Parts: sequence; structure tokens; C-alpha cells
Amino acid sequence: MILAPGATIGILGSGQLGRMLAMAALKLGLRCHIYAPESDAPAYDAASERTVAGFDDEAALARFAEAVDVVTYEFENVPIGCVEFLESRKPVRPGARALAVTQDRFAEKTFLSGLGLATAPFRAVPDAAALAPALAEIGRPAVLKTLRLGYDGKGQAMIREGSDLPALHRSLGGGPMILEGFVAFDCEASVVVARSLEGAMVAYDLCENEHDRHILARTHVPARVAPGVEAAAKALAAKAVEALDYVGVLAVELFVARDATGGARLLVNELAPRVHNSGHWTIEGAQTSQFEQHIRAIAGWPLGSPARRGRIEMSNLIGDEADEWRDILAQPDVSLHLYGKLETRPGRKMGHVTRVFAEPPHGG
Amino acid sequence: MILAPGATIGILGSGQLGRMLAMAALKLGLRCHIYAPESDAPAYDAASERTVAGFDDEAALARFAEAVDVVTYEFENVPIGCVEFLESRKPVRPGARALAVTQDRFAEKTFLSGLGLATAPFRAVPDAAALAPALAEIGRPAVLKTLRLGYDGKGQAMIREGSDLPALHRSLGGGPMILEGFVAFDCEASVVVARSLEGAMVAYDLCENEHDRHILARTHVPARVAPGVEAAAKALAAKAVEALDYVGVLAVELFVARDATGGARLLVNELAPRVHNSGHWTIEGAQTSQFEQHIRAIAGWPLGSPARRGRIEMSNLIGDEADEWRDILAQPDVSLHLYGKLETRPGRKMGHVTRVFAEPPHGG
Repeated sequence: MILAPGATIGILGSGQLGRMLAMAALKLGLRCHIYAPESDAPAYDAASERTVAGFDDEAALARFAEAVDVVTYEFENVPIGCVEFLESRKPVRPGARALAVTQDRFAEKTFLSGLGLATAPFRAVPDAAALAPALAEIGRPAVLKTLRLGYDGKGQAMIREGSDLPALHRSLGGGPMILEGFVAFDCEASVVVARSLEGAMVAYDLCENEHDRHILARTHVPARVAPGVEAAAKALAAKAVEALDYVGVLAVELFVARDATGGARLLVNELAPRVHNSGHWTIEGAQTSQFEQHIRAIAGWPLGSPARRGRIEMSNLIGDEADEWRDILAQPDVSLHLYGKLETRPGRKMGHVTRVFAEPPHGG
Repeated sequence: MILAPGATIGILGSGQLGRMLAMAALKLGLRCHIYAPESDAPAYDAASERTVAGFDDEAALARFAEAVDVVTYEFENVPIGCVEFLESRKPVRPGARALAVTQDRFAEKTFLSGLGLATAPFRAVPDAAALAPALAEIGRPAVLKTLRLGYDGKGQAMIREGSDLPALHRSLGGGPMILEGFVAFDCEASVVVARSLEGAMVAYDLCENEHDRHILARTHVPARVAPGVEAAAKALAAKAVEALDYVGVLAVELFVARDATGGARLLVNELAPRVHNSGHWTIEGAQTSQFEQHIRAIAGWPLGSPARRGRIEMSNLIGDEADEWRDILAQPDVSLHLYGKLETRPGRKMGHVTRVFAEPPHGG
């Protein structure tokens, strides 16, 4: 199903990603209808319609499906049941399969390994008793993670020499988990890739990401990596979206580590079945933003060029960093984005800033 | 009064300019409330609140003033009484004075002449009997225009040899008019300028405009004009906004003609007290878009850099030209904007496209 201008896109979730998706839809003459449980949230201001209801409210979901032409989601923790319910009524892009694979860390790592893509070594930890044998296989240091609902470092803990295993397991809620080998990486990176309804693919240039307390702090493009690494990362991302028969934008989070000979080695950390914080630079820094790219893909429209306009630095404004908005606005080379969040909290993403620097025509 | 992020901007008018202003406000963490008589219109989709009411509905205007922190307008034909009513309750930027001067072609030309800025020769034509004597002074060809409500060539008629003066006068409604000498120009141009609450000013580079049947068809930046013309145009625009104690974005429409010695000569055609179609290129082509610039100015915030990113071509999509949206989307170097208008009509601005071409670092 291909949308016409004037059509309505339904978005599950009401955060800043939904807000920026809705702004991209507006640019293209489309409308958005936001569906989320929150009564006040960033995306509502950019949408022509909103439904404030739980993801398990089938009556509200049915009305929502009736009111929109296609459905997408702006975060990966939408319940699968909700998406399956909607899929029986309207196209959902990307669909329940991408969500199922990426919501569960064990399913995700298994999917990646099945494609021949390198990840950290991992073992299932279905219960507390399984932790010690898994750790014996993986070795220390290792990272214990809940299967679901982890983001920005939530739902994970490092296991070192002397760690109290039962206490760590309890601190993460005691449910089924995954144990991953710790990767001593040189840097973190990501590839933002898009796939159209017809199967065409485009990838943005590799992003180099710096985290601070597990929250993305800065993204640099181009990434400062060895020749060949960027092409390898794009190829790997293409393999993942192809295997998922994916429609929309997906981000692949990567570790750039070293192999035995000192060469660069890429490990997939996780997949995000949505637009991604490390792709925010594309609003000013690319011919087509990741948000417009996602809207084009789910509308059944041709993808846009991901061509980069220069060397980029994107910095998140976390918590009270956004209080500096007036000083930031006074800097001539900076583009400021604020998400309209009325309450500042530590660790909360309040906005971001992007700088685009002219680059010599042939790189370097 | 300086706005804080999260504040609400009230916009009078609901067209595509209001839509793009609201999108710029969203980027900066602000909300918009659109006030207009139309029940369905482009700007509503981008706003968190709307009031559908007449510009003379004082009860609705009072509620609107109560709900917003600052008021602006996206077209110059808002009744002065409406703006004066709002000004007694909330800041209106730019205010009633800019509107009064620009709504009336005779007041506008008189204001410009008073500043020492060149315009076409003009005479007041208060009634039909005044037309022949005015024409005797101005000479033919000349252009007879209504004082108010003219845009895109509406409300004006050319007087040539043999024209039937009484019939022409009647065809324009018979009210008070202005007669202007016809200017044989080399090209049409415009300067988009912004002035902040504190009186700081920035001007975008001179735009060269091509019209088709009185409707803007294409804008090229930089304008292909003689050296010195661009600086003269910016200086002239600065003089106008300064004299109006203006806050916000204003566009000066210019004729580039020749003086007796064959040199370039600038004549002001009219002022638009708002963001302008010839500034749409700034969304992709400048560090700060004209829409963000206007929002910054009326919020009492610092202005942004108007630095241009390359050589620009902006083309309007008029009427059924927008039906080509799918082919346009498939061109890699084009950015498409659609305004969400559900009905295509001949002469209606449905969207626009922008191309940014890399330019050698030092012009040329």
C-alpha cells in the first residue's frame, strides 16, 4: 500500500523520535496521529491527532487503525500483541517480526549469529542457577543483561572478579537474562540504514559515538576508523535489514574492536528498529534526514539520498545541559533542537545540537 | 518579554507560511496556536492548538490572547483592528505599525520615499476622476493598483496606450487606488532580513526571483547582479526594518533596473511583513531558516547565522505541478516540501522544491 500526500501516518510512542518523525511527515504533506499512554509528551505537539490510551486497549487501537493509513513505531518496547492486533487491520512498517527480534536480547543475538555477523560471545541465562555455568563458558569480565526493556544502560550489570552473582541476578529482577562477554572496544559506532517497500536500501555514513554513563553524548561523522571498516559496517547493516524484510530506518550499534593481528573487527551490539539518536545529525548534515527517510520508506515512496554535507558533530543535551539554550543559540555555527519537554530530569534527553563543518570536496 | 522553551506562539493565519513557522517553533521546543477563519488549512496540522474564528470575533481573540505568550502573523491582510485588540493583551511582533504601513500601497510607497528609498513614481488615485490627471503626471505604461488586498498579481491592471480608463478603474472595484509608473526592470529580486527584539539585524543573500503570471516560480541565490547591488539591497532593507522598529522577518521585493548611465538601480516594489516565498530556500540552504529566524526574533532570542550553504535553486510547485511529487522524490539532489493542501487548484501554491549545489569556497 502506497500513501498519497495528505494521508495519515499512525505512530506508536510519543517521545522526541515521534516528534521529529511527525515534523518530517509535515514537510512531505502528510499528517500524523500519535498513539501513546502518556498524557503529555513531545510528539503530540507535532501531530494533527492524538490517542492517549494504553497499548493493550483494543477498542482504542481499533479506532486508531481506522483513522490512519499506515502504522509505525518510534520505540522498540511496544508490546508485540499491540502490533499484531494493528497488523490485522492496517500495514505496520516495520512489522511485528522486526520488533520480536529486537525486543529480546537473546533472540537478537541469535538472529545476528545466524546471519554470520559477529557479536560478543553470549549465553542464555534462563534462571539464577544458569548464571554460574554460563559465566564459566564466557569468562570474566562479562555483562549480565535482562532480555527486555533495556536502553541507555538500564537492565545490565558488569560481572568482575569477586562479583556476588546471586545479588547481581536479583538486582536485575531475577527474570530470564543473557550473559555476554565484555568487549574491549576501540570505539562505538553505528550505521543508520533504510530499506524501502520495494527493497531498495541506502545507508548513512558510519557514526562514531561517545557515551557518558551509558547515554549517547556525542556523534562524529565521519567515524575515525581504518579504511574498509565503514564499507564493512554498511554491508553488515544491509544484510540485517534484508534478512528481516525490513521497511523503514534501522540502526545497527557496533563495537569497533581489534582482531588477533591488530586489525579492526566489527561486533554488532544491538539493532534498533527505528530512527536513532546517532542519526540526528542527518537533519542538517545529510541531503535527506533519517526522519524523512523513515517516512518515505513506510509511505512506500522512493528513498532519498543519504549524501553527507560535511564533517559533523552532534551533541546531546542531557538534563540541565539544555538550560544553556540561550548561549547555544548565540553560537553562529550550531543548530539547536529542543524537544519541548517541560520537566528537566538528570539523564533525560532534552535536546541536541549539530555542527556541520565544510569538508574538502574529496574527503581527507 | 522573552519566551522560555515550552512557551506558546500565537499565529494569525493558517497557510503554508504558518505551517513552516510552526515547524520551526517545534524544532526549538516551542508550541504554536493557530488562529484563522478557515476550518481546514495547512498550518493546523503543525500546531498543538487551533482557534477557528473570524478576525473580528473579540471573544475568541481574547481567549486566544490568554492562551499564548506572543502573537505573530503569517500574512499581511490581518485587519489592523484585530492586531490592535491583541496588542492591548499580549506582545504582537511585528506589531500594528508594520501592518498599517504594508497593508496600504500608498502608505507603503510614502513610507519608503520618506526614507529616501527609490520606488516607481506613484500618485494617489482616491476616485475615478483622479485617474486621468495622475496618469498625465506618471505617463504610460503605468500600473493601477488597489490600495489593499493585492498579492500574486491580484488587484492590479496595466494601463497602455488606448486603455479604457473608466472600465479599468471599475474592474478593480472602484475604490481608492494608487497609480504607479511601469518599471522596465532587468530582474526581480528580494532581500529577506530579520531584526531581533534588541535591534540586531541579519540579512540573507539577495534572491533573484522569476515570476510566471505574477506568481513566484523560481528563486536563484546568489542573484546574478552587478557587484555592489547585493550590499545596496541589504543596506536598504536594514533601513526599512530599523525605521519600522521591526521585530521578526521582513522581505523587501525589489526591481533591479538601469540608471541613465546603464548602471544597476534598485527600486523597492513592496515590503512583506513576514516570512516570504523567496526565502523558502533557507530551510536547506542557510545555517538558519527564515522560519526559525522569525521565531527566534519574536521570542526575544538571539538571531541565527544567515550563512548560505551553496548555490541555490528553489522552484514553487503551482497547481498540478505538485502531482509530479513521486518523480521529484526520486531525484537525489532535490528536497521536496508539500503543504498538505488537499485540493489542487490552478495557481495554488502546493509545495516547493530546493536544490543546493556545492559552491567553490570563495564564490565564483
